[in-house]
Amino acid sequence: MSDYPKVVEFHEEGPREGFQIEKRSYPLEQRARFVEALADTGLKQIQVGSFVSPKAVPTMADTPELFDMIRRRDDVRYTGLWLNEKGFQRALQTPGCDMEGKLIFYTTDTFCKMNNNCTVAENRDAQGKWAQLYLDNDVPLDKAYILTAFGCNFEGDVPQDRVLDNVRYLVDLCADLNVPMPAIYLADTVGWGNPEAIRRMIGAVRELVPDARIGTHLHDTRGVGAGNVLAALQMGVSLFDSSVAGLGGCPFSKASDVQGAGNICTEDMAFMCEEMGIDTGLDLEALLAAAAMAEEIIGRPLTGKLMHYGMPARRAA
Amino acid sequence: MSDYPKVVEFHEEGPREGFQIEKRSYPLEQRARFVEALADTGLKQIQVGSFVSPKAVPTMADTPELFDMIRRRDDVRYTGLWLNEKGFQRALQTPGCDMEGKLIFYTTDTFCKMNNNCTVAENRDAQGKWAQLYLDNDVPLDKAYILTAFGCNFEGDVPQDRVLDNVRYLVDLCADLNVPMPAIYLADTVGWGNPEAIRRMIGAVRELVPDARIGTHLHDTRGVGAGNVLAALQMGVSLFDSSVAGLGGCPFSKASDVQGAGNICTEDMAFMCEEMGIDTGLDLEALLAAAAMAEEIIGRPLTGKLMHYGMPARRAA
Repeated sequence: MSDYPKVVEFHEEGPREGFQIEKRSYPLEQRARFVEALADTGLKQIQVGSFVSPKAVPTMADTPELFDMIRRRDDVRYTGLWLNEKGFQRALQTPGCDMEGKLIFYTTDTFCKMNNNCTVAENRDAQGKWAQLYLDNDVPLDKAYILTAFGCNFEGDVPQDRVLDNVRYLVDLCADLNVPMPAIYLADTVGWGNPEAIRRMIGAVRELVPDARIGTHLHDTRGVGAGNVLAALQMGVSLFDSSVAGLGGCPFSKASDVQGAGNICTEDMAFMCEEMGIDTGLDLEALLAAAAMAEEIIGRPLTGKLMHYGMPARRAA
Repeated sequence: MSDYPKVVEFHEEGPREGFQIEKRSYPLEQRARFVEALADTGLKQIQVGSFVSPKAVPTMADTPELFDMIRRRDDVRYTGLWLNEKGFQRALQTPGCDMEGKLIFYTTDTFCKMNNNCTVAENRDAQGKWAQLYLDNDVPLDKAYILTAFGCNFEGDVPQDRVLDNVRYLVDLCADLNVPMPAIYLADTVGWGNPEAIRRMIGAVRELVPDARIGTHLHDTRGVGAGNVLAALQMGVSLFDSSVAGLGGCPFSKASDVQGAGNICTEDMAFMCEEMGIDTGLDLEALLAAAAMAEEIIGRPLTGKLMHYGMPARRAA
């Protein structure tokens, strides 16, 4: 019936997704304690913040100070996000930021032009330069994201070949640079995915690169997130980006920027996996405590469900 | 990979689930217009209200008046819920209430005693009397629910045979009475289900009664609802109870009565089906309008997601 992985890994995006989207800033101290709480749940990777222009995203201006304040665990990677070389250099110069080489591919010119002022093809060539930059700085090439892999608010449904063209480029690039293939992350950036689309797209990518590790970056924009995760699990996906408490969403307003709408919720999806017998390595009670902390910091109800109802009470044997 | 049905049917429980759980009552007129809006979405069946003790559930005391006020469509069934013979008689005497014969089975003595002051076995025997009562009153035996089929807050995980024993009883009962088997609804009454448990339980029931139509009554208590619906679809389930806007939940408080926690959301799940190419017969835009109406009546944000983000904007061809 399915090809479930035995073990899956959730990479936590809550600290960046959650606080970046907010209009106000939150005290450094609170955010550092929140990251520390997350690090105590068994999560192996936590995206702490963005190295983006402080002018564009004032809430992330203090990312280097945040890294500095966190009491680190040795078994957790604390990562950051950058969108240009300046941000990359800031990350490199930030002690405590675990450098993770990421490439970003697009599927539609309209969305790519909005974000990068270039076409899909031009952005693809730029990724070659990024890969070289990582190589030059001893940063391992860990992940390649393909954004809006399941649909785009500007150009609608995305043909499979738009995704596969990026994968083909990546294969050639890795061969040229003689580096191992990074994990390929299919991102449902604006919440268009459905379980069948996910099954088909992952199947097509798998056929092209059978040995590549595949991950997903899914949003629960339209309430289908758990179905999409299940479909990905059934295709053997073992890497998931997620946000504790569903941080990052703006659930109860017609947000003009729907890109921000709700990552899949770490503890709800980890609960689903664990109940299905798939090992996440996570301590769900500790995750629920971190989710409660997020809700307290943000100061309004968050969209996670398990955090509001708790674990099923199994009778002691 | 799967055995998806081509067509699925959602039975709407929002009007009862949504308003019954609330502490205050809402004007009859508003609730009647809400049911009418739902009836214009393509839904074939809507549970309008409960015929339960007005003392126990004051918000449902005016159910007969509500039925009377609704402008009916011929292609929709307007049903009600009863829990005892007095309620059944009230329903029978309510013009406009489409009578639907339902049996209710339990899986754990503790939960059954709480609800009915009897054991699982005693309740089972009582269902024989209910079936006879329906027969005597020309009420078709439409559905047999098996409550807490996936877990119980009091007794924990539910062994498969607890569910199958009820199915076996039902088979014998229908043979004895010489009536067709009703649809069998597996209910995740307190939100314990996960996709694997659902796959296994439905598989076991299907093996026992290959020709029976199987439905599910699922709650999204712990954020796994869409995954559970997908698992049910993959097992060929084509009948789903659901609530528009996710009505019935009490999402942001540690409800003492978690039974009330969030039915799966009609429009989100219908969206998932339609995107997967499964026909629901529903007008999603009309459903979104009904969901918005529910939110306005209740007067606080509801948990549906599609209603807050809208349909993906596909570019005109």
